[in-house]
Amino acid sequence: MPGNTFGSLFRVTTWGESHGPALGAVVDGCPPKLPLSVKDIQTELNRRKPGQSKVGTSRKEEDNVEILSGVFEGKTTGTPISLLIKNKDQRSRDYSIIKHLYRPGHADLSFDLKYGIRDYRGGGRSSGRETASRVMAGAIAKKYLHLKEKTQIIGHTLQVGSIQATKFDPKVIEKNPLRCADLTAAKKMEKLVLDIKKDGDSVGGIAEFLVKNVPKGLGEPVFDKLEADLGKALFSIGTVKGVEFGEGFNVTNLKGSDNNDQIVLKKGKITSKTNYAGGIYGGISIGTDIIIRVAVKPASSILKQQQTVSKTGKSAKIKVDGRHDACIIPRLIPVAESMIAITLMDHYLRQQTII
Amino acid sequence: MPGNTFGSLFRVTTWGESHGPALGAVVDGCPPKLPLSVKDIQTELNRRKPGQSKVGTSRKEEDNVEILSGVFEGKTTGTPISLLIKNKDQRSRDYSIIKHLYRPGHADLSFDLKYGIRDYRGGGRSSGRETASRVMAGAIAKKYLHLKEKTQIIGHTLQVGSIQATKFDPKVIEKNPLRCADLTAAKKMEKLVLDIKKDGDSVGGIAEFLVKNVPKGLGEPVFDKLEADLGKALFSIGTVKGVEFGEGFNVTNLKGSDNNDQIVLKKGKITSKTNYAGGIYGGISIGTDIIIRVAVKPASSILKQQQTVSKTGKSAKIKVDGRHDACIIPRLIPVAESMIAITLMDHYLRQQTII
Amino acid sequence: MPGNTFGSLFRVTTWGESHGPALGAVVDGCPPKLPLSVKDIQTELNRRKPGQSKVGTSRKEEDNVEILSGVFEGKTTGTPISLLIKNKDQRSRDYSIIKHLYRPGHADLSFDLKYGIRDYRGGGRSSGRETASRVMAGAIAKKYLHLKEKTQIIGHTLQVGSIQATKFDPKVIEKNPLRCADLTAAKKMEKLVLDIKKDGDSVGGIAEFLVKNVPKGLGEPVFDKLEADLGKALFSIGTVKGVEFGEGFNVTNLKGSDNNDQIVLKKGKITSKTNYAGGIYGGISIGTDIIIRVAVKPASSILKQQQTVSKTGKSAKIKVDGRHDACIIPRLIPVAESMIAITLMDHYLRQQTII
Amino acid sequence: MPGNTFGSLFRVTTWGESHGPALGAVVDGCPPKLPLSVKDIQTELNRRKPGQSKVGTSRKEEDNVEILSGVFEGKTTGTPISLLIKNKDQRSRDYSIIKHLYRPGHADLSFDLKYGIRDYRGGGRSSGRETASRVMAGAIAKKYLHLKEKTQIIGHTLQVGSIQATKFDPKVIEKNPLRCADLTAAKKMEKLVLDIKKDGDSVGGIAEFLVKNVPKGLGEPVFDKLEADLGKALFSIGTVKGVEFGEGFNVTNLKGSDNNDQIVLKKGKITSKTNYAGGIYGGISIGTDIIIRVAVKPASSILKQQQTVSKTGKSAKIKVDGRHDACIIPRLIPVAESMIAITLMDHYLRQQTII
Repeated sequence: MPGNTFGSLFRVTTWGESHGPALGAVVDGCPPKLPLSVKDIQTELNRRKPGQSKVGTSRKEEDNVEILSGVFEGKTTGTPISLLIKNKDQRSRDYSIIKHLYRPGHADLSFDLKYGIRDYRGGGRSSGRETASRVMAGAIAKKYLHLKEKTQIIGHTLQVGSIQATKFDPKVIEKNPLRCADLTAAKKMEKLVLDIKKDGDSVGGIAEFLVKNVPKGLGEPVFDKLEADLGKALFSIGTVKGVEFGEGFNVTNLKGSDNNDQIVLKKGKITSKTNYAGGIYGGISIGTDIIIRVAVKPASSILKQQQTVSKTGKSAKIKVDGRHDACIIPRLIPVAESMIAITLMDHYLRQQTII
Repeated sequence: MPGNTFGSLFRVTTWGESHGPALGAVVDGCPPKLPLSVKDIQTELNRRKPGQSKVGTSRKEEDNVEILSGVFEGKTTGTPISLLIKNKDQRSRDYSIIKHLYRPGHADLSFDLKYGIRDYRGGGRSSGRETASRVMAGAIAKKYLHLKEKTQIIGHTLQVGSIQATKFDPKVIEKNPLRCADLTAAKKMEKLVLDIKKDGDSVGGIAEFLVKNVPKGLGEPVFDKLEADLGKALFSIGTVKGVEFGEGFNVTNLKGSDNNDQIVLKKGKITSKTNYAGGIYGGISIGTDIIIRVAVKPASSILKQQQTVSKTGKSAKIKVDGRHDACIIPRLIPVAESMIAITLMDHYLRQQTII
Repeated sequence: MPGNTFGSLFRVTTWGESHGPALGAVVDGCPPKLPLSVKDIQTELNRRKPGQSKVGTSRKEEDNVEILSGVFEGKTTGTPISLLIKNKDQRSRDYSIIKHLYRPGHADLSFDLKYGIRDYRGGGRSSGRETASRVMAGAIAKKYLHLKEKTQIIGHTLQVGSIQATKFDPKVIEKNPLRCADLTAAKKMEKLVLDIKKDGDSVGGIAEFLVKNVPKGLGEPVFDKLEADLGKALFSIGTVKGVEFGEGFNVTNLKGSDNNDQIVLKKGKITSKTNYAGGIYGGISIGTDIIIRVAVKPASSILKQQQTVSKTGKSAKIKVDGRHDACIIPRLIPVAESMIAITLMDHYLRQQTII
Repeated sequence: MPGNTFGSLFRVTTWGESHGPALGAVVDGCPPKLPLSVKDIQTELNRRKPGQSKVGTSRKEEDNVEILSGVFEGKTTGTPISLLIKNKDQRSRDYSIIKHLYRPGHADLSFDLKYGIRDYRGGGRSSGRETASRVMAGAIAKKYLHLKEKTQIIGHTLQVGSIQATKFDPKVIEKNPLRCADLTAAKKMEKLVLDIKKDGDSVGGIAEFLVKNVPKGLGEPVFDKLEADLGKALFSIGTVKGVEFGEGFNVTNLKGSDNNDQIVLKKGKITSKTNYAGGIYGGISIGTDIIIRVAVKPASSILKQQQTVSKTGKSAKIKVDGRHDACIIPRLIPVAESMIAITLMDHYLRQQTII
């Protein structure tokens, strides 16, 4: 059973391989009459696109989105929105190495085990390039939620290697290549990443996401709780190895009397005094900020020699050249924001059916 | 849109409130001809049931499962399996406190925000009691995978408060009330929990799950990756605030060259030398162990006085008496194992369609 | 992949075999705060229950519904509603004939081909008894739509054998055993059925359904059009062999200029002058009556000797005694009404997401 | 909740408006390693494309399919297959009439009632042009089932107006513009259609579909029975107003003893002596031919003056010029065959999970 569709009511289907002619997304279920332009989507795509800085890959893709359906006279019509990017920088290159040898950390072996066939060019469907489709769809969800509910999703780099951000200034996030909210830490992170890049290696870290102005009542117990669907959304991104909400793994150090958010009135409205839970109770939002952190592994593509096995079952050494991301977190941030937006949008529509 | 069904091909729907007449599960999609008895399910249910030890609640429920359909002459028939437990220990008690006051950390407020009505008796649908239904369904998935693939899911308590297990002896897990694989640590954990219980408080921790003999090729890119669906399964459990696979949040300390699992031949079979990834690559299993850790918050039910607000919007103090779990991890373990089993079973059936 | 759930937002899962301990339905997605009692459901169940008249089976089942969850203090809570009927009249009888021989027209052979195993007692899951679960769920949908939108679904017998109703008096439908809106025709139909019953045979016919006060805008192009989902709903009933909307098969005799419903104003509201389409255009309702007719085959259970083959592949003669329906239409009517109600309710909730 | 996806395991999502830049389909869940070329799809598309004969519209569209993903080195890879057709013949024309006036029989009014906005150019999403996407997806399903199971789907025109085919010679179907299996009737039908066309009108009829070499065991009781999903598939086509299986509406004239297909051995295999049921019992195929007939309404687009109402609620006359189909049945046939193929393919994959 296939798995290329996310969401129930705001339903995103993505398609496309890294080195095929194009890639895209179909968004079904977007409410009608939302003003939507190419620019709305392109702006978000540009945040993800390769070649933005030295910490990322130097692959150049213009990533120009085309809207093929679902928008008429500048507004959505309620019919499926088809979005497409043509692949341009498909360097003609020699794929003979990865055709026959499984790259460690990649999905080469697992795709062969699953399907018995794979498009080996640049990782095919398992390439991070697929996430461009998610960003296109996410741009629509972001726009809708922001227009209707002033919802805002802020992603930033909390840690790279052992370097942690200790300040949070959201204004600087988009102004440094690390998307870090602490400029001092950002500089240290950048230096670390460039050193590691020079060495042909990659580095992991932690990204954090804050959602402001969350609509109340989102989340569907008992299985489609908001944390459950957000967790799925984030774990569906290739490099994510851990997800936590609010205090997350730190709960082990807390007692119930510490961790329970007391309930209070602020300006006549019921809310929580603290936010250890990260905005979700029993799987349902109450309007306080959602707080999420994700652990991002060091990108699997490195320039070092590694041990592997060939398709025909022989031990081998592999060394893959190419243009890769020494630290993927800055480019993961718009992708993760998009998955969060899509999930919230889906649950926002789901909540409309509680009448 | 409702959220009480989990899975696509092995589809589990649960129903029932904490203090209603009964609770249950309908399992649709179980393959035919699986030998299945009440005992198969009861054995797992007994591992979750309340009143097993002093670290958990003293609520007594016999939790006797009845199989109402889908099994004929001791075998499944391919039709839906309806499983039911009658609630027995519904102490007649005074609910006037939680009827009017929202308990901190609980879903009282969020259910009211979402539905505008709630069954307040014992938390109603948001009670942990609902997870008994999951254990019943999980018992079927476990049995099937074990018979067909020798798959085994081992859950154990890794940490409670600051006390960590440092040994792993699976044989002792079911022999101590903490379900810890390290007997020395288990004793310290038990003492800690009882001290905290005496104080009317609760404590959090970390549980780990190892899956042995995982079928290869499970997981459906790009959204229904195995980590994505396992992540959702685990975050759908009320007390889980963090989930990680393999090295998890520790990836921030690793470089690509450390974290990539080299690919090797063992006894002529392709596998990985290490298992930092936790058995899943590009969202697909390769047959190595799946390794998962979950952060479990201290149970929200405590006996201390807390600050809250009433339904009518007035500040108040709340102090709830009752029988609760000072440390929920030992009882969470069979629940989480069940969700893992259900997810693997669903993906096992999904993989049958790759023909 | 299993098929025992119908609907997306108003989601009905049924379970149970003809001669198992019980059968039931879980309704997930019913809006909260709907007043709901056992009586609301029992009233509809009684319309379907066996033993009402001589044209139907003499099997006696009290069919007493129990509500096990999802209703609190007389109102739905938004959580799943579990409904159960215990089977009582499970005559201990000799099943050795149908255990080994496939009954013509029944699902005995096809279940064995599909599952390789079947509960042969009374047809097991393929028995018409399963439709009691649909009627329970349908009663909830009917009540909701009637309260909110005054929607009314009127089913009646249009034809039995060659006898056609020529009048339409809705008041008499529930007052004759045929559920015919024409009392004169009803008497002729009854005589025909009793003659055929005496002969150990059964007879088919046509039922018609009118939906009044249909909410506007229901139906989701391009695949989940209202006719598509209603068509599926009705063809999921075992004895239905044809479905048509509005003019149906008669369109072959019409030209576009005859068949197009001209659009007019009535009391200042846009509507159609005629209703050849049966209330649905481009898969979407416009508020005019939905008109559906279904062809109902003669029940497969007859008392005559028939030719068949045994499980072990030998030619044989089969003659099954028992209590059966010589004309199933009167009991099919509440079942089909229920499926129509469930479908409309599902689409009513779906339409709430067009915001 | 959107409705532009059909199927569960073989999942087809279509997008595109009649006069937008392009239209297409994403097919998710096609098994890997199926040889697939542009030609495989183009051949089927050409059967549907406009401008083939005088009985259909003279709109000229080359309808050249592009495969954008999911196929590598001539074979499917198990990843989503994205198919696209660019719209070419988008005559610049005056849409002011249908912008303001609702065309009788069309979805103009119902789309406005549902979405509050619509792309009025050529009917937008509600145009029959959307079915080109279905034919592309259907071509893949047809090819797979034919390669694996020799399954063949034969559609032909049974009746146009009052002219009925009385012979069945499958070889002539593709050799006459009516797709009629009776050449004598075909000529009469053609004359009738051309006369009606001259008059600016349209005519309805009946198409029949035979499926040969049906895999056994397809269909999922109790709701996703094979008739239920085929019925939905066919009713999702805009012009279909009736669907029947086997004897269909003729069952009203039959007794159980006539209509029950006796079970016999043929060449040592269990099968049915007759096929009144149309190949499906209890919702499950047994390998005999599936027989379906659909009632096709006269196309709503006619050149005659009709009565209507404007968007602003004023009575008006409408007369739409343009190129339309006087008899849509010949072009509906490949569309309906495609929907049948997609449904069977979906159930074929579903049956793989019965292990």
